Amino acid sequence: MSWLDDVKWNAEGLVPVIAQERGSKDVLMFAYMNREALAQTVARGEAVYWSRSRGRLWHKGEASGHFQTVHEVRVDCDRDVVLLTVTQQGHEPGIACHTGRHSCFFERYEDGAWQVVEPVLQDPETIYR
Amino acid sequence: MSWLDDVKWNAEGLVPVIAQERGSKDVLMFAYMNREALAQTVARGEAVYWSRSRGRLWHKGEASGHFQTVHEVRVDCDRDVVLLTVTQQGHEPGIACHTGRHSCFFERYEDGAWQVVEPVLQDPETIYR
Repeated sequence: MSWLDDVKWNAEGLVPVIAQERGSKDVLMFAYMNREALAQTVARGEAVYWSRSRGRLWHKGEASGHFQTVHEVRVDCDRDVVLLTVTQQGHEPGIACHTGRHSCFFERYEDGAWQVVEPVLQDPETIYR
Repeated sequence: MSWLDDVKWNAEGLVPVIAQERGSKDVLMFAYMNREALAQTVARGEAVYWSRSRGRLWHKGEASGHFQTVHEVRVDCDRDVVLLTVTQQGHEPGIACHTGRHSCFFERYEDGAWQVVEPVLQDPETIYR
């Protein structure tokens, strides 16, 4: 499929992916996709990433129920980065982070250190069953 | 400096960086930083990236005048991705992309192809002097 060939995959066959929440426009998380993950994401309308740590496709939400409905898929000017617009399912507000927080970007630089600035919305032990 | 040591640099000593516009919350671009770039970004309050193609520090705007004022620096849960909140200087609305567009993410997946969905705001030939 030519739109998949148009993506500039890196040496590992991956592309970095940013997931942004529709509505709030919060950046929720960052992950990677391989060709199969991007193809499945578009086919399902739900985010499927490539888990580098587990070395397999990772249908986001498969363990937590926190699926990501995908509304829009964009690439950047070099076609080597993907931006998803998503709705984070399973909790209101959405929980994208494995720590039980809304966004993975919950630490902010302040006075020479990283400070946690977002609350845990749900105990991760009750998310992953 | 320990906050720099806390960042999980990849094998090339780099970290992926997402630049998000304050106000609009648009994702403007994606780039990389090395340790020196992140240190300079925080010290200057302006985005300094590591240009992988040129193999040197890249003070965004040095050639175009389109500097990025940095309001906030975040890391994700693995501390291996950085999220900047920025104001894109030099044009209204801001031009972050070298193509003269607001955002680098100007192509959207539609019916099996990447479609350009954002206009060129300024001819790149008049941006880079």
